[in-house]
Amino acid sequence: MYREKIKVLDCTIRDGGLINNHDFDHRFVRAAYKAISEAHVDYMEIGYRNSKKLFSPKEFGQWKFCDDDEIRRVTDGIESQTKISIMVDIGRVDVDDIKPKSESPVDMIRTAAYVKDMDKAIHMVNNFADKGYETTINIMAISRDQGVELDEAIHQIEEESKVNVVYIVDSFGALYQEPVEWLVKKFKDILKTREVGFHGHNHQQLAFGNTIEAIIHGANYLDGTVYGIGRAAGNCPLELLIGFLKNPKFDIRPILDLISKEFIPLRKKIEWGYIIPYAIAGMMNEHPRAAMALRNSSKKEDYREFYESLLNTGLE
Amino acid sequence: MYREKIKVLDCTIRDGGLINNHDFDHRFVRAAYKAISEAHVDYMEIGYRNSKKLFSPKEFGQWKFCDDDEIRRVTDGIESQTKISIMVDIGRVDVDDIKPKSESPVDMIRTAAYVKDMDKAIHMVNNFADKGYETTINIMAISRDQGVELDEAIHQIEEESKVNVVYIVDSFGALYQEPVEWLVKKFKDILKTREVGFHGHNHQQLAFGNTIEAIIHGANYLDGTVYGIGRAAGNCPLELLIGFLKNPKFDIRPILDLISKEFIPLRKKIEWGYIIPYAIAGMMNEHPRAAMALRNSSKKEDYREFYESLLNTGLE
Repeated sequence: MYREKIKVLDCTIRDGGLINNHDFDHRFVRAAYKAISEAHVDYMEIGYRNSKKLFSPKEFGQWKFCDDDEIRRVTDGIESQTKISIMVDIGRVDVDDIKPKSESPVDMIRTAAYVKDMDKAIHMVNNFADKGYETTINIMAISRDQGVELDEAIHQIEEESKVNVVYIVDSFGALYQEPVEWLVKKFKDILKTREVGFHGHNHQQLAFGNTIEAIIHGANYLDGTVYGIGRAAGNCPLELLIGFLKNPKFDIRPILDLISKEFIPLRKKIEWGYIIPYAIAGMMNEHPRAAMALRNSSKKEDYREFYESLLNTGLE
Repeated sequence: MYREKIKVLDCTIRDGGLINNHDFDHRFVRAAYKAISEAHVDYMEIGYRNSKKLFSPKEFGQWKFCDDDEIRRVTDGIESQTKISIMVDIGRVDVDDIKPKSESPVDMIRTAAYVKDMDKAIHMVNNFADKGYETTINIMAISRDQGVELDEAIHQIEEESKVNVVYIVDSFGALYQEPVEWLVKKFKDILKTREVGFHGHNHQQLAFGNTIEAIIHGANYLDGTVYGIGRAAGNCPLELLIGFLKNPKFDIRPILDLISKEFIPLRKKIEWGYIIPYAIAGMMNEHPRAAMALRNSSKKEDYREFYESLLNTGLE
């Protein structure tokens, strides 16, 4: 699948940060940036920009804050065409922390938002756009919000925002191919002047398959992470996505090296991937919160009991 | 997706046997049969029927031979509506070992064949059909054989065989959704009086997604294995498939129990799942043979070198 407009965004450090308190060390992030740059991936999302008034730097690693100076330090001296992205959450960022693009190493700011927060998201995105950044809105938990409110939110984005890309985010890993097709077609239909993106979660081993489905129907911005790292079951593996896309600019080899040297050892320390409680949460279209709690308990392999507890929750 | 004609076949012991020399013990197979029966899965494939003249029972576990008496012993006393399937390979089975259906606990015999072996496959299948068995032909390595020989083989099956079901087998885990769609449509178009089946391999995390794709386009016989066990990266996880299919007859809970109690411990002893050399083999449409050898060597995590060795093989 070679389509020149396709852009790949690696969010290894950002989504992976959700399972290690954003505490990747300098050496690791530098190695990741070098490999992702050598692979000619279009964007690397290096973390969240959260307000230090709301979260203490003593409790979280620095990729929860992504200071401009820290980004400069970790990328310094590495030859790269890869653009830098950061993510912000509604209500957790101080927009005054965002300097004009001309004074920052950041190229793109992605705003993660639920459908209900679209007014706030558009307000923020327009601020970032005015400061010179590329922008996206990433509509989270979309498997739960597919009704008329979603339609209104997309129309509002098209009419009121300066955003470049609107992402479909399958936060719960609950989407199958047919809903992905339906959503991408809807987004493309309404967002006539924007690009559509897709961010999958791998609870049911469908992050890569759904990303292909999104590509087939016209999504051009695609998220992946190295070795699929990310919250709960993780994300679409970047190496599979690069293997599928036939654009000759990509080079998979630096990513393979990075997995051998950094991610195989890391996976022995922290957990992501195909794990039954996350699969169950995906099937049931539930946030993986309860499954993550289970994995930190003595009942981590009691799948039937967990399944039945979710069934009962749904009936309450 | 509820379609009454859909049949699910569990091939845990058969495909899983490829990674442990078919040496599952009596207790394990009995636990699997009980859970699969309680889950109301339509078929359970319990192994291969290989000739003892060609393979020594001293070197392989008994599920490489699947004697009728052994099948009776392992299923005895367990209430079940699940039909028993065995698989045969061209040139490895003695057809005289196959008694008439009325004298056997086996319901279905599946014949695995490459396109080039279709004459032999049809000859064998007709013998099994005459003996009273349900039959399938499983066309292996189909990602390599998509040309005019495949068309001829499918026409020949439709015209000359008594087979019930013809399977598309993605032996190399190389198919993406679009080729699956193309193949299922082709099979449905030519095989007007037979059912179409799909057996995926998970090298690129697409076994489940491709199975859904096959269902969408009309395949009604679907293979899965518990926790995705199987050669190399393994197969479509049965639990995900049951979660997707909305047929109320299925019960996922016995499968969840089986994974907790038997497959989590087993996975610590033998390896399957998302492993980079298998992903690379899938991307390159290669048999996982070289990747399996790599995983048994001291270079098991040297992914870049393995990738480059496959690139070079392709150029020779």
